[in-house]
Amino acid sequence: MRGVLQHQETIEVRTPGRGFVELSREVAQVVAASRVRTGVALVFSTHTSAGLVIQENADPSVRRDFAAWLARLAPDGDPRYEHDEEGPDDMSAHLKSAVTRTSESIPIVDGRLALGTWQGLFLVEHRAAPHVRRLVVHVTGEP
Amino acid sequence: MRGVLQHQETIEVRTPGRGFVELSREVAQVVAASRVRTGVALVFSTHTSAGLVIQENADPSVRRDFAAWLARLAPDGDPRYEHDEEGPDDMSAHLKSAVTRTSESIPIVDGRLALGTWQGLFLVEHRAAPHVRRLVVHVTGEP
Amino acid sequence: MRGVLQHQETIEVRTPGRGFVELSREVAQVVAASRVRTGVALVFSTHTSAGLVIQENADPSVRRDFAAWLARLAPDGDPRYEHDEEGPDDMSAHLKSAVTRTSESIPIVDGRLALGTWQGLFLVEHRAAPHVRRLVVHVTGEP
Repeated sequence: MRGVLQHQETIEVRTPGRGFVELSREVAQVVAASRVRTGVALVFSTHTSAGLVIQENADPSVRRDFAAWLARLAPDGDPRYEHDEEGPDDMSAHLKSAVTRTSESIPIVDGRLALGTWQGLFLVEHRAAPHVRRLVVHVTGEP
Repeated sequence: MRGVLQHQETIEVRTPGRGFVELSREVAQVVAASRVRTGVALVFSTHTSAGLVIQENADPSVRRDFAAWLARLAPDGDPRYEHDEEGPDDMSAHLKSAVTRTSESIPIVDGRLALGTWQGLFLVEHRAAPHVRRLVVHVTGEP
Repeated sequence: MRGVLQHQETIEVRTPGRGFVELSREVAQVVAASRVRTGVALVFSTHTSAGLVIQENADPSVRRDFAAWLARLAPDGDPRYEHDEEGPDDMSAHLKSAVTRTSESIPIVDGRLALGTWQGLFLVEHRAAPHVRRLVVHVTGEP
């Protein structure tokens, strides 16, 4: 055994407002830089109005349906919300960020993220306006 | 300190179509094979129409209610779905896989998964037809 | 490289019944005790009627809106539930624990949890009555 090592990077992602930004390639680059061949990549979002999700990356209609479903589940400007000071997309974004996730952990097998054939890792922006989102990628494993 | 080691296995699980398959025993076997006594087991699903969840494993009525609730939350064949080429259970399965999870991380204490008394780890098949699902189990820790 | 080490603690949290208990400080204390400066903290709940979530910790109205939204998503005493032997808040608690999470993983950067400015880690009690909840905190990393 050559011993377990760690590699940590903070990456910034520009979002175009509400929608999905695929991160699979950025995270794969961090894994490559780490030289880990067998291990785990943890991706962590430092925000409560954007989230992470692993979803189908082939057909974009899946993401459109997913966004529309989130909008029905946690509607903008619901009059029952008490927290509305930042606008109608503020509280809905917090709720959607509970359905998407704050972090995703992905095994590394043979130096590659063990995503399935149709899986992509996405940052989901829940606010209407563009944002710069900060993610911590932590890689652990053996070279 | 004897040092941190890793152990990684890919397991295949046959599902009978929609429903829950308990994985606690399969994952415990991978932990036993790893010889890790203190650590973490990460279970990762390589699919976007099946998910993982830790739920009550004593009374099967909890799983029936959970499945019925998922069906109300993300109904089959909703006419608002754009993505429907694989049938009425296709898009609903993608949405349900966001409520269940792509991975679960479970601490290992004294060589055993630290699941609570009533907790079981389940693979949730969201498609109507039986499938073979591929999971990566990654164990890290000290012997 | 000084090598990767581990530190594991079980902590008990008293909940006042339904609601949010912030855990950020308790988990930070476990991280401090571990002497890990670069690594990951995994927090795991051993319960199926309480969950973990990372949410806004500044304005308490976010938590009130979140609790009200969960109550609409998984209502108490829904006559469609089959599992009701422990009361009207039993099955709803299991469903809510799927929307919140069984575990959260947080990177450790410079000896501190890498939570964003507005992020707090919360235990969410889904049962109406007060409970003592048991959490396993597993820290891995380099000093």
